[in-house]
Amino acid sequence: MYRLQPLASRSFIAVALDQCLPVSLPSLTGVRHKSQGAPTLERSGQMRFSTAEATVPAGRLHRKPREKTLTMDTLNPQVKAVEYAVRGPIVIKAGEIERCLEEGGRKPFSEVIKANIGDAHAMGQQPITFLRQVVALCTFPELMDSPSFPEDAKWRARRILQGCGGHSIGSYSASAGVENIRKDIAAYIEQRDEGVPSNWEDIYLTTGASDGIMTILRLLVSGKDSSRTGVMIPIPQYPLYSAAISEMEAVQVNYYLDEENCWALDINELHRAHQAAKQHCQPRVICIINPGNPTGQVQSKKCIEEVLHFAFEENLFVMSDEVYQDNVYSPDCQFHSFKKVLYEMGPEYFNSVELASFHSTSKGYTGECGFRGGYMEVINMDPEVKGQMLKLLSVRLCPPLSGQAAMDVIVNPPQADELSFQQFQQEKSSVLGALAEKARLTEEILNSVPGIKCNPVQGAMYAFPRIFIPPKATLGMQPDMLYCLRLLEETGICVVPGSGFGQKDGTYHFRMTILPPTEKLKMLLGKVRDFHLGFLKEFSALN
Amino acid sequence: MYRLQPLASRSFIAVALDQCLPVSLPSLTGVRHKSQGAPTLERSGQMRFSTAEATVPAGRLHRKPREKTLTMDTLNPQVKAVEYAVRGPIVIKAGEIERCLEEGGRKPFSEVIKANIGDAHAMGQQPITFLRQVVALCTFPELMDSPSFPEDAKWRARRILQGCGGHSIGSYSASAGVENIRKDIAAYIEQRDEGVPSNWEDIYLTTGASDGIMTILRLLVSGKDSSRTGVMIPIPQYPLYSAAISEMEAVQVNYYLDEENCWALDINELHRAHQAAKQHCQPRVICIINPGNPTGQVQSKKCIEEVLHFAFEENLFVMSDEVYQDNVYSPDCQFHSFKKVLYEMGPEYFNSVELASFHSTSKGYTGECGFRGGYMEVINMDPEVKGQMLKLLSVRLCPPLSGQAAMDVIVNPPQADELSFQQFQQEKSSVLGALAEKARLTEEILNSVPGIKCNPVQGAMYAFPRIFIPPKATLGMQPDMLYCLRLLEETGICVVPGSGFGQKDGTYHFRMTILPPTEKLKMLLGKVRDFHLGFLKEFSALN
Repeated sequence: MYRLQPLASRSFIAVALDQCLPVSLPSLTGVRHKSQGAPTLERSGQMRFSTAEATVPAGRLHRKPREKTLTMDTLNPQVKAVEYAVRGPIVIKAGEIERCLEEGGRKPFSEVIKANIGDAHAMGQQPITFLRQVVALCTFPELMDSPSFPEDAKWRARRILQGCGGHSIGSYSASAGVENIRKDIAAYIEQRDEGVPSNWEDIYLTTGASDGIMTILRLLVSGKDSSRTGVMIPIPQYPLYSAAISEMEAVQVNYYLDEENCWALDINELHRAHQAAKQHCQPRVICIINPGNPTGQVQSKKCIEEVLHFAFEENLFVMSDEVYQDNVYSPDCQFHSFKKVLYEMGPEYFNSVELASFHSTSKGYTGECGFRGGYMEVINMDPEVKGQMLKLLSVRLCPPLSGQAAMDVIVNPPQADELSFQQFQQEKSSVLGALAEKARLTEEILNSVPGIKCNPVQGAMYAFPRIFIPPKATLGMQPDMLYCLRLLEETGICVVPGSGFGQKDGTYHFRMTILPPTEKLKMLLGKVRDFHLGFLKEFSALN
Repeated sequence: MYRLQPLASRSFIAVALDQCLPVSLPSLTGVRHKSQGAPTLERSGQMRFSTAEATVPAGRLHRKPREKTLTMDTLNPQVKAVEYAVRGPIVIKAGEIERCLEEGGRKPFSEVIKANIGDAHAMGQQPITFLRQVVALCTFPELMDSPSFPEDAKWRARRILQGCGGHSIGSYSASAGVENIRKDIAAYIEQRDEGVPSNWEDIYLTTGASDGIMTILRLLVSGKDSSRTGVMIPIPQYPLYSAAISEMEAVQVNYYLDEENCWALDINELHRAHQAAKQHCQPRVICIINPGNPTGQVQSKKCIEEVLHFAFEENLFVMSDEVYQDNVYSPDCQFHSFKKVLYEMGPEYFNSVELASFHSTSKGYTGECGFRGGYMEVINMDPEVKGQMLKLLSVRLCPPLSGQAAMDVIVNPPQADELSFQQFQQEKSSVLGALAEKARLTEEILNSVPGIKCNPVQGAMYAFPRIFIPPKATLGMQPDMLYCLRLLEETGICVVPGSGFGQKDGTYHFRMTILPPTEKLKMLLGKVRDFHLGFLKEFSALN
């Protein structure tokens, strides 16, 4: 149990009331936190050093101590400005509590449940056998002789290795990825989009989708003029976007999703945001996340058309983050790719709107986050700019080959006449079925709690419920930060405050994943309910 | 065969004299290249599109064509400024020639030999069995039951998986890497450095060494003031450094290695470069590559001491790129880590100089480039800055888990009492023995050619011979670019011009790897000799 001790306006320290050491929470504003005061604890190396014998060059001691070159004062201010709540202070604190539990500390709970990040395997989801078979075969080709690996997996592994230098995934690939894999991806997109053409030379393998998103933004955000480049992002958003914008010192242009309307994207709001931004920057790019993260909505075809028409008219580069394209649960919803909708709008659009769309191995039914696999399809990019992008990618050499191989399996899964088809289908629908059930369950239980309102989780992997809490519930921090911190301390449940994603002023939310196993999720949601009622009671009394 | 047709001062086009299509070489300065004139060839998708039926919204055609948002004029100029010769125009052209050969085109050679990049497996080097066994076991844990995998590999895989969420390498790790692996790395460093303490919390896994180098530079190069931050790099250098400096718009401060003295680092030259730079920027960091890339020298302990003393005095952050630490061939040389030398200089130094050192799975005896594994050890960094760095890393989530696993094997190889020890040792010494022999051979044969002078390849994977060529051998481009282009066209051998790494004005070099199999390397060097003599003859006549 912790008692909160406010220290300064936006910093605080949690003091343990049981036998654990005090744990600290670095504030969002970079206020020095407690553990930093104890270098001998932090740097055991130095402790040991002090007892070791070392040759000290004569006459070099007893001088003024050397100043550090890199301090908070000299640190790149753009780095300082970055915030990333999904792995932010709450999560750091969850790690501290976890360590405390491991060391035998007492808590009102026996484990920390990390519902902060879309990390399916960490929540117990099993890997898709076929994917792992193919990657294992690529990794250790001696397994090609093993009768326990199916021929369809071996066939795919052989084909991937044929595309690798020296037939080894230990060689660098071309910076855009292995050619065979790029071709498989293009074929997959054509099939997904019912015949809309995809050119494999428009496909770039990436180190997860984040890497691709950063690459495209880096082309668009112009050096010294960066503070003039506007990047339109949804609010709430996945904080990679705001972090990238901070790091590149671009201008974040917020368009708000309509919470009252299932987090729909309203075209009028796009116009409003764009008009307002034009006063102080040049909006050059619009980012869309569909299905939404953290908001879980699935965009309608009509809405996508409107966005693309808007981008066409306003000369915006379109970045469509479609990493949850396989995660659609609501029977009323369907995933429409931006590319396909653009095609259906006719050649004037399809041959002109600059569009980069992103996919990943980390989500969907595979959840292979650790492989850091992904791709982007980039259409209508100026050919010379494409050359420049390839040059930029080549400096990082290439995306990891095992991630590329994993991506290949996703776009080239077992077919109906292949040996592994049945098991693959069964595993895939088991994962997606469970997610759909958990999406429904989460929405239902959260909406049963007075003071919590949750839009339908139509897709993706998160609920982003609105929590109605007394505005005076702050103790020197954002009310939703306090809420999530207390939730963590009292129940061991780790979720991320809505402020990390952005929300309308005066509204509060949190993001939680729907990934824990069903029974654990039910238990978790029950605890959230009890906590919420208690929190409300405690802080209503203050008002 | 190609005839060079000069087009403009710094661009040209090679015209094929046989049945292959003309191939183009994008100029270093971004001059439009030929293939860009043929969008229907490039974008087969669009070609097919023109025959497909599509819904065209009424009244939307016949308007002025939409301008592109992202053009060479609006592209981030820092991206434009980046150059990366290791995968630059010569290499793009090598790819074109390769494709031409595949399609049955005739050339005076039957294959392109890519000696441009340190990509061992692509040159036929076999993976270390034990490493691949461990990674395959992590990838497909069902193999734990297979009797064909040794217990010591299983033990390591189990230990790695225990450190992963849900015991799966499909989960994200902590952004700094899997804790067990960080601990193994720290233990390895302590052993390597004969007891100098290493703290696992100073270890950060990376996506290859390049990723770590970019991360540290990003902290040091300060946003709006970037053009005031000086980054000292050796010349010749590995062009990741110059590329990163361009991208971040920092100031590149060159210190020249002493070619006459086996590419030694001369402390007086450091002082000269630093003094000169102080006139127009603030030098904040010094980068050292040891063993050297492309230059192959191994720094003496005395030299490292001098560099560290200099960094201490001038308040510089030290970045030591030690990815070739296992690649030392000359019996007179020994690898000394910057960290160990710093320790031996005494606590005043060891407790103050900010040092980041980098290692990788891509080099050494494993050559596992495709895994994108690596780590950095960062000592004496301000604790708050460390927190900021971790935040920055967390935006990219984590390095690929298979690369982390590969790194773990490198720092935790089979011990003498383990089953796999003998095979591992045999494979390791076979690779390193062959490299040592090829290093010697390369130096010897190159030095037998009049007009080529090659310093001993003491370490790393490259020769960087000086070529004495008539300065009039230009045809509108850098003489060494012309030399390498002609070498490629006439022999199929792909090496990188010295200008891509930096060299003293008026001197010319190329970088070639020593990685091809011994017999092929001999053949390659023979062809280089013949080509060189012919080139000399041809262009001497012009003078």
